[in-house]
Amino acid sequence: MFHAASAQKYVDASTLTIIGRTCPMEGHPYYRVDTTRYRFDNATIRHYCGYPAGVAVLFTTDSRRIEARWTTAPRSYGWNMTPVLQRGMDLYVRENGVWTMAGAARPGLQDRHASTIVEHMDGQPKECMLYLPAWSELLTLEIGVDEGASVTPLESPYKHRVIVFGSSVTHGASASRPGMTYPARMSRMTGIEFVNLGYSGNCMLQPEFARLLAETDADAFLFDAFSNPSPKMIRERLDAFVATLVKAHPDKPLIFMQTHWHTAGNLDQEAAKFHRERINTADGMMRRLAKQYDNVYFLDGEWFFGRDAEGTIDCDHGSDLGYDRMISERLPRIRKILRKYGIR
Amino acid sequence: MFHAASAQKYVDASTLTIIGRTCPMEGHPYYRVDTTRYRFDNATIRHYCGYPAGVAVLFTTDSRRIEARWTTAPRSYGWNMTPVLQRGMDLYVRENGVWTMAGAARPGLQDRHASTIVEHMDGQPKECMLYLPAWSELLTLEIGVDEGASVTPLESPYKHRVIVFGSSVTHGASASRPGMTYPARMSRMTGIEFVNLGYSGNCMLQPEFARLLAETDADAFLFDAFSNPSPKMIRERLDAFVATLVKAHPDKPLIFMQTHWHTAGNLDQEAAKFHRERINTADGMMRRLAKQYDNVYFLDGEWFFGRDAEGTIDCDHGSDLGYDRMISERLPRIRKILRKYGIR
Repeated sequence: MFHAASAQKYVDASTLTIIGRTCPMEGHPYYRVDTTRYRFDNATIRHYCGYPAGVAVLFTTDSRRIEARWTTAPRSYGWNMTPVLQRGMDLYVRENGVWTMAGAARPGLQDRHASTIVEHMDGQPKECMLYLPAWSELLTLEIGVDEGASVTPLESPYKHRVIVFGSSVTHGASASRPGMTYPARMSRMTGIEFVNLGYSGNCMLQPEFARLLAETDADAFLFDAFSNPSPKMIRERLDAFVATLVKAHPDKPLIFMQTHWHTAGNLDQEAAKFHRERINTADGMMRRLAKQYDNVYFLDGEWFFGRDAEGTIDCDHGSDLGYDRMISERLPRIRKILRKYGIR
Repeated sequence: MFHAASAQKYVDASTLTIIGRTCPMEGHPYYRVDTTRYRFDNATIRHYCGYPAGVAVLFTTDSRRIEARWTTAPRSYGWNMTPVLQRGMDLYVRENGVWTMAGAARPGLQDRHASTIVEHMDGQPKECMLYLPAWSELLTLEIGVDEGASVTPLESPYKHRVIVFGSSVTHGASASRPGMTYPARMSRMTGIEFVNLGYSGNCMLQPEFARLLAETDADAFLFDAFSNPSPKMIRERLDAFVATLVKAHPDKPLIFMQTHWHTAGNLDQEAAKFHRERINTADGMMRRLAKQYDNVYFLDGEWFFGRDAEGTIDCDHGSDLGYDRMISERLPRIRKILRKYGIR
């Protein structure tokens, strides 16, 4: 059921500027990755290729009101995520060089949605960035505006592009809405595009991901690569994964981040043992690899969600607060490395 | 459908210590307010009296595993809130005087729920605080533990009690989970109990609320009273509301907080005009009232969610980040006032 449909004119969003895709797919404008080119055996990974986490539509409009109507493919709801993160959208408008939140596109519980995002604006041209659903396949999207209003593609404001490959933390669980994932926030804060290649629970240093990243053009790569694999997987796969990336991108910075401490381990003794072994394994191997390769970097430290266990929704996934703390701790270290390569 | 049921022994939570109720109701152990004593005409307010926002169950157990099974009354899901905030729970354990998040009780989409909260603990006695669902009526709750484990009521750690009367911001939209509402966080941070009397969208200085607060015993009162009423309502109702409270609690601090700037007003010109008039109305009247009454205080300033519009989920309701910013700005000012009354 549509919630609202009072706009007088609708524009197909796929005709506007779309950013945040790693490997666009013919006929599927909102897919992050082309699943015919990269054939993952795992069905969840294939689904996630189609989820437009971090993907945004850019346009300029002089409409006083902006609406959206859209359809998502059926999927069940997660207990630790908001509906607006999973199937909704949020709109930012750039004024005086600063992106500011303008409104949310409210999803329903079913698969067809419509929502007013913002209204009563001044009618001057507005530069808009609409973040797409982080946890659902988006089948159709139309932007609704006033009759007579213009809607034109807006050129991407980002000159440099950093691919962020990672787990649910990168994918965005449990940010409050799509624009609050840490890659999206870091993009707005820096003017450097951090492209979201998060695969919740499935970022395990697989060779197929190494191939995807080796064939992807970017100015730098950032890895949240140690949140999902077991210590054994890290031992077995990390050297080859890094070697593939170094070979493909010999002059690009490859920045690996330590995973966060899972606060379940504060009380759960088995979880503590597992997470500690994983952290120690990644730490030891990455220190060696960062010495071995000139352009490989390691951001150590597992406490970036805070030591007080208040930065996660479930002892595991960040809230907006956890991600804010993460950005405060990690982003200055990331920017320092990127500046050495002229990425600013 | 129950998600998990592997505990060997269950204890009815209503036989344990329950904190956070303003006016307990016979036969409804998890209601915040007795709806037979306070008869609100508005059905939403009556429902909210039954939602245990801010209510927590306190117990000590030496079980290695803690589970919960519980039932909630049917209601629809909100698009800007997580299921775990609405129908789930989160558990804190106190170690060395500090409350730390131990795990979440994951709700299903229907009305019967069961979840393991934490496991593999060391079997030593643990002091536990389980926050109840913020946005659903809780019909039954059982705590599941290992066979042979003890479960005993834990005395409240709080000596002083401050009632927080307010809007959705106080109620908790859109904190990530029940324990992350700002009254709950401030309680853990200070050792002073901030009791959640948030009524989302319905906190409008009504005489019935004034009567409830006048008849409620507490060491102090904190008011988030300007987020819901219109400027006209504030003009018509505020003087009488304050007079009733001063008469009932002549020696207690009555602390009124300004409402937050609704960032929708950054672009929506009608919203901006409405919110600005409301803020100005509250500011002017409260400065006068704070002069008129010795124990009435006003915390001015509307930017406590931040000026960057990143602290809300929907331009209106705080995320965990917004509430963290709010606490950083408001709590030192609140504590300074409370200290004058020996509340620390």
